[in-house]
Amino acid sequence: MSIKVTVIGAGSVVFSLGLVKDLCLTEGLKGSEICFMDINEERLDIIHKLGVRYAEDLGSDLQFQRTLDRAESLQDADFVVNTATITHNEYFARRRRELGTKHGYYYGRTGMPEYHNLQLMLDVAKDMEKICPDAWILQAGNPVFAGTTLMTRETSIKVCGLCHGHYGYRNIAQSIGLDPAKVTWQAPGLNHNIWLTHFYHEGQDAYPVLDEWIKNKSEAYWEERQESGNISAQMSRSAIQQYKMYGLMPVGDTPRRGGWWYHTDLETRIRWYGGPIGGGDTPDGRARVLAGKDKKYQQMKEAAYDPDTRPIDMFGDRKTSEQHVPIIDGLVNDNEGQFQVNIPNNGALPGIPDNVAVEVPAIVNRKGIQPIRVESLPRKVMLECIYPEWLSMERTLEAVKTGDKSILLYGILDSHQTRSYDQAVDVLEALFEIEPNEPMAYIEDIKDHYKWPDIW
Amino acid sequence: MSIKVTVIGAGSVVFSLGLVKDLCLTEGLKGSEICFMDINEERLDIIHKLGVRYAEDLGSDLQFQRTLDRAESLQDADFVVNTATITHNEYFARRRRELGTKHGYYYGRTGMPEYHNLQLMLDVAKDMEKICPDAWILQAGNPVFAGTTLMTRETSIKVCGLCHGHYGYRNIAQSIGLDPAKVTWQAPGLNHNIWLTHFYHEGQDAYPVLDEWIKNKSEAYWEERQESGNISAQMSRSAIQQYKMYGLMPVGDTPRRGGWWYHTDLETRIRWYGGPIGGGDTPDGRARVLAGKDKKYQQMKEAAYDPDTRPIDMFGDRKTSEQHVPIIDGLVNDNEGQFQVNIPNNGALPGIPDNVAVEVPAIVNRKGIQPIRVESLPRKVMLECIYPEWLSMERTLEAVKTGDKSILLYGILDSHQTRSYDQAVDVLEALFEIEPNEPMAYIEDIKDHYKWPDIW
Repeated sequence: MSIKVTVIGAGSVVFSLGLVKDLCLTEGLKGSEICFMDINEERLDIIHKLGVRYAEDLGSDLQFQRTLDRAESLQDADFVVNTATITHNEYFARRRRELGTKHGYYYGRTGMPEYHNLQLMLDVAKDMEKICPDAWILQAGNPVFAGTTLMTRETSIKVCGLCHGHYGYRNIAQSIGLDPAKVTWQAPGLNHNIWLTHFYHEGQDAYPVLDEWIKNKSEAYWEERQESGNISAQMSRSAIQQYKMYGLMPVGDTPRRGGWWYHTDLETRIRWYGGPIGGGDTPDGRARVLAGKDKKYQQMKEAAYDPDTRPIDMFGDRKTSEQHVPIIDGLVNDNEGQFQVNIPNNGALPGIPDNVAVEVPAIVNRKGIQPIRVESLPRKVMLECIYPEWLSMERTLEAVKTGDKSILLYGILDSHQTRSYDQAVDVLEALFEIEPNEPMAYIEDIKDHYKWPDIW
Repeated sequence: MSIKVTVIGAGSVVFSLGLVKDLCLTEGLKGSEICFMDINEERLDIIHKLGVRYAEDLGSDLQFQRTLDRAESLQDADFVVNTATITHNEYFARRRRELGTKHGYYYGRTGMPEYHNLQLMLDVAKDMEKICPDAWILQAGNPVFAGTTLMTRETSIKVCGLCHGHYGYRNIAQSIGLDPAKVTWQAPGLNHNIWLTHFYHEGQDAYPVLDEWIKNKSEAYWEERQESGNISAQMSRSAIQQYKMYGLMPVGDTPRRGGWWYHTDLETRIRWYGGPIGGGDTPDGRARVLAGKDKKYQQMKEAAYDPDTRPIDMFGDRKTSEQHVPIIDGLVNDNEGQFQVNIPNNGALPGIPDNVAVEVPAIVNRKGIQPIRVESLPRKVMLECIYPEWLSMERTLEAVKTGDKSILLYGILDSHQTRSYDQAVDVLEALFEIEPNEPMAYIEDIKDHYKWPDIW
């Protein structure tokens, strides 16, 4: 069946090209239309050109549209893949981190609750209510947890948040000498906060293999890689320490977090995430990521305008491991599959309110996205990892909803790096005054949105 | 009707004498028996002697027993008032705070979850299940919130936790020029975490009077008292700042807490709680409290053995404002009253699980202790004050229940004063090794109770 897929923030070129490839390679979605929307004309042109040529390479009849206008892009959409971001733009994020650092926050971990990306998600979902009320949002941009919860509470749009962090189980398996293809696993929770409740290799519990690896091989593993920087967060000392603390292995983006005490300064980061730069979530680590993205973007740009470079040579002809298109295929063509999705709980994960987005496995077919009701997470994981983050998310949404600036202040005070009340107030005001980036012009200004309570 | 009231930890002489007085002055409880139990023979002798003579002074036929044996004291008890404490003993508490200070924690705010007092409460309640299963516990010793929750979850005993912090509303009224006797108020929440939802003076909303006081009089009030140390926590800059942050006035012990940023060091304490020693919750402030208690105890001791001193001259002949005896009178004699109690929620305070002890107003009569179902607290109070403490309490109980030492470590890591993982581990081990005090011999040793998880 041919459908229309709109990509908001299509200038995320690598991601968008993945969608193009997966759509081209999905038999049941032949003749579909993909509409690229971005506010950046240059990026839009690149992805459009590359997309068209990639479809040619793959022998597909995928149709392409492009627009700078969000409302136009949503017209007749069946699926909206929202990958747009305002504050997670690497350049802005770096600028904001540097501001935080000036105020005494290593790597800018100020605790400032998210506003911009959430407001953007809400604006998109509200537009959809008017323009394409039956379409699905597949939410790719972060924060997926808060955003999925917000959109499903505040609008009638069907939302599914997606992430690829759960593939971290493969990394675990490989690292301890198991074949990921023979692993049966489950890792429910909240997005970026998921826990390996089931881990079998050829039907046998694989946790003892992990325990054995920790006991006998982990030290050598870390020492060998200490100087090369080749320790993934997934198999870092931090991840294993989290396993010891909480009783289950954290998966994907989860071990990148895990507690303030892993992230206070470079020395501490090196201790827990390995040398020489303390993993990806440090100034130098992130600079590498950014350099890689920059290089990739330049390659893309050249490829888009170079008649001699064919996309298929750069990006191959095998489906990505992203879930977006297979989920679309399941919903549209009843091509059933099991996926890891973020959807309102409604009982799927015991102990979490119904109107909170949880990350759980789901069966997707013509009937919809139907979560598998998983078992309760261990109480320790709930009390030390899940509930604190649920609370923090609720405060963030309450701030967005009420525009109460004091809730933002509470968020900063709640950051373990904050040392005093005055420091919190100062960095809050500084974050309000930071020079906006281009996408911020498209949503309500933070200074208009948030006010101190009357009594202040 | 004559009943038997057992006082566990009766060596809290001032408190126990208050019970004696209230029992003597309660017509309906004539001929009742009061059984003092304590592990300290000297203190037990003092309260017993004073009690007997006080009853004579008041012309009462109250009967007295005394015992060092807990099981004996519980025999035939109708009410057990548990005021015993292990770690809140001022001398031990000081020693523990000093240990914390050595490890970098101002005023010893290490975040170490409570164990000893909770284990004691549980032991008492379990004894009662065997010996006097129909008796009530009136829980006076702290932590009332965690303890009431724990005992009601783990035993079948009827529990009512009591505190007098809610009388802080009187302080608020007086300070802003209102007559407390003409105030109608309500302040539900969790123990030591209650919020003034209703505040009327002669039927008129009194919050505007408070706002006016804050705007025009508070600065002068604080400045005048800055050097004298006569600023109560209830009317401190901290309390008012909490009102601004959370939208409702914190009552009683609540403003003594309110956020880590009020308590990081002496300078900060002075800023928020006034000079010259930063209020009662500082080393010097607490030394004053302790000196006062020491003096009082010496007076008691002398009075107990001095035939020329009559208790009535020292303690008067008017009922205290404590709720214990009036509640007993309500339950036993149907002498109905309204009280501020801590009991399992079961729907009284919306948004809190049923099996968590909430502090709410209740009607007490022959039918029992029946809470008034109050309105929801504002969402900001729930998200920033109530839920975080609920979570912390749940972790504390989970630690007690499982004996998992890593949950204690999490509690310390969760303290905002903790600066590193190693510091947390070090202070945890030091707290395990602290020289025990005498009452600790009566419960399971902390080192036997808690073990690291197997994987550690």
